[in-house]
Order: sequence, then structure tokens, then C-alpha cells
Amino acid sequence: MKTFSQDCYLGVLGGMGPMAGAAFALRLAALTPAAIDQQHIPTLLRNDPRIPDRSSAYMAGGASPLPHMVDGVRFLEQSGAQLIAIPCNTAHLWYDEIAASTGLPVLHIIQAVADDLRRLGLSSGRIGLMGTAATLKLGLYQKHLEAQGYECIVPNDDEVERYCMGSIRAVKGNRLEEAFAPAAECIALLKARGADAVVLGCTELPLAVPHALRASLGVTLTDSIDALARAAISHYQADQPEALIAA
Amino acid sequence: MKTFSQDCYLGVLGGMGPMAGAAFALRLAALTPAAIDQQHIPTLLRNDPRIPDRSSAYMAGGASPLPHMVDGVRFLEQSGAQLIAIPCNTAHLWYDEIAASTGLPVLHIIQAVADDLRRLGLSSGRIGLMGTAATLKLGLYQKHLEAQGYECIVPNDDEVERYCMGSIRAVKGNRLEEAFAPAAECIALLKARGADAVVLGCTELPLAVPHALRASLGVTLTDSIDALARAAISHYQADQPEALIAA
Repeated sequence: MKTFSQDCYLGVLGGMGPMAGAAFALRLAALTPAAIDQQHIPTLLRNDPRIPDRSSAYMAGGASPLPHMVDGVRFLEQSGAQLIAIPCNTAHLWYDEIAASTGLPVLHIIQAVADDLRRLGLSSGRIGLMGTAATLKLGLYQKHLEAQGYECIVPNDDEVERYCMGSIRAVKGNRLEEAFAPAAECIALLKARGADAVVLGCTELPLAVPHALRASLGVTLTDSIDALARAAISHYQADQPEALIAA
Repeated sequence: MKTFSQDCYLGVLGGMGPMAGAAFALRLAALTPAAIDQQHIPTLLRNDPRIPDRSSAYMAGGASPLPHMVDGVRFLEQSGAQLIAIPCNTAHLWYDEIAASTGLPVLHIIQAVADDLRRLGLSSGRIGLMGTAATLKLGLYQKHLEAQGYECIVPNDDEVERYCMGSIRAVKGNRLEEAFAPAAECIALLKARGADAVVLGCTELPLAVPHALRASLGVTLTDSIDALARAAISHYQADQPEALIAA
């Protein structure tokens, strides 16, 4: 990585949830090939947990998060962001509207996960999905992965509520010690149904399943936080406008 | 914690280094008593690694980070920050100048560590110090802790270079697996010289010494990232202007 010129940032619309937004910034730094501070990607993280709950909006007619997300992206753009990342899977139900509201490129977390599956050697196969009830019910992953040749295995409604939402709510409520068991249960269940890999398709789930415990689960996992971080790093490595980088 | 009203933020001047800035945001979320996203502290993290190296400026006459830090605080203030945190110990060599440049309260990381020592039950005693060569040589901790009745135990120059700077550079260079051993060596050495507690007085050092391994080191540790996060949380809990919080 080269040294970045002033006044450019990766803009991160975080807060959905706040621990996931911060974890994205941490994994971005950890996965960046950098030997000193100055080679890391300058990042502006608006970690604003006041954005109305995405699941409640879709599933229970709650306040829409869209105006808040559009405001957030506008703030990041005005502050010098040249690329936007949104470390929240459910927020991508509004991806088209968000992308239409800004002239900046907006990374797509589901596409980042699909790219990560290929990085992990899976260009086809059965993919087990974990995420919020809204993400799974509205087919956010199914639509994208099936179009790219994957077959999706989705937990039933009871399993989503018990295992996925149980784990996600524990992370959001700072009860990390309660978050692993239900997530691990769901991973085992998807593996037993034939999944070649399991998507941690809500940015709380990678926090529920610590990196150190993943090998013990016996199935390939793709982590939507890490996948989005890798997509941001690839953007800067491969595709960056000259202006981003000092000579 | 209550729900925050719009347009207020904890402004975080990060990037020094970037992993420490992100880890601060993560630990802030983890340590906040919150049951749902909306009860977390809204945070704006300017994680800008382009700020010139603090140690090089003091120790080798490198470019001063002060103008960059003042710019960063001004940006945070203009973006709605109502409180500033700077998760970098060495940056606090310029604390007075930074605090004078803004009307906002600026948390002091060394004071946060002193408060944390008292939280840990140590209101006097011998405190082993770890940090950058600049932080230790210029007596940043010694000045504050001795004024509050503590006695400081400081590694010699060779030990600072080998153990503290060795560990810090490994974190900054994303070689976390090489960061633990030199840090643990220094902790053991300070304990052997009579330290009642050891200060991880550089925000890279808590990343070098994972929480899961701390109990095995056999001495009380205070972590400057966690201490600063606790100071921010205390500010919002105890001392917040009414305007910060929605009814």
C-alpha cells in the first residue's frame, strides 16, 4: 500500500450496530497490508446507533432508516469520503435508494460475500445462510447468490428467530458470552443439511463467532464484516483513482 | 443509558494508530451498558493514519503532528462532536495545545488511566510503566501519577526499545502474533521489580496483550484504551448536558 494524500477517506456508515461498525474499522486495519500507520486506509466512521432499526422497519412497520442513512452518506461525502461502506447486511435492503442518493461508489456487502466465497475456493455449491429475519425473508442473499450459480439453504422461521436473532440480539445487548451457542447451533444445523459453506450474513454474527473458535466448527465460514473490509482494500489496491494516493 | 438526541457525537481523533482508534470504538461499545443499538454513544471516528508519527516528531525532529491533530479536532467539532477522545498516549504530549484549540472538553488519557487504577483498588503504590520511548522519556505518566501519590517504575532505554517499541511496531505493522512476547517480557520484568500494577500506556499495547491472556500474567494491568473508553462512558452517564439526551 502507498501513502494516501490528504482529504480522501473511506466513509463508513456504521452504528448498525455500533459494535459491528467498530469491528469493521478494526478488521479493515487488521487485513490491510501495511507496515506503518501511514499506509493504512484513512477512514471516517460515523458510528451512529440512532438510525432506526432496519429489521423493525421491514418486519413491523417501524420508522424507516432510509432518511437517516441518506443523511449519513451525505455527511460522509461532504467530509471527503470517496467510497462508502455500510457494515450492516439488513441496510442493504435499501441499497438501490442509498446508491442513487450519492455520486460516490457504494460497496455492496452481499457482492463482497459472493466474492469472498470465490476467494475461499467456492464458485458453486450449497451455501447456508444466517442473518436477520428481514434479510432472509426478503431474499437479499438468495437473489444475489442464486443469480451467481449458488444454491441457498435457509433456516426455517423458528430457527431464524431462535438461533440467528437470538445471537444477534445478544451481541447488540453486549451479552457476547450468550451469543456463540445459538450461532454455533445454526451453523451445525446448516452443515447437517448439506451446506458447503455458511454465510455470517449479519454484521453482529462475526462478533458472536470469534475467529479463534471457527476452525472447530468444521465448515467453511464467510464473514460479512471481513468480506466488506476485503472489498474496500481491493478497491484501493486495484481500482483507485490517482488522486487518492500520494506519489 | 438513555437514547441520544440527534446531532451530538463523541468525536474520536484516531489513526494513531488506526487499529488502536478502531479498537477504542469497539471497546467503547463493549463497555457501554446498553441493551439495544439506540442506547450506545453516537461516535464519529476520524481514523486518519496520515497524522505524522508522534514519536518521530519528539525523538527525531520529524514533522509535527500538532497541526494535523488541531485540524482533526476542528473537523470533529464542526461535525457535531461535543466531547473529544484521543486514543493515543504519545499524542497527549501535545494535550495542552490541543485542548486550547477547541471549546470542547477533551478527555485526558493519562488521567483516565489514573482513574482506572483507583477503580482497580490501587490508590497508591508502585506502578510499572509501558509506552513509547517518547511517552516515557518525557515523563508523561510519571508527572501525572507521581502528583497523585504513585511511585513509577520505568524500564531502562534498552528495555523500552526492545520490549515496548518492539511490541508496538509489531502491532502497527499488523504482526500481532509477534507483539505478545516482548510485551509479556516487559510486564514480567516490571512485576519482578515490585510493580503493583502495570500500565499498558500506549494504545497499541492492549492489542498486543489479548484480554484472554491477561489473567495468566499475574499482575494487575490497566489498559489505556479501556480506561479512555470508561472515561467517555462516565462523562455521558454522570456529567452530560441535558441537550445530549432525548427525554
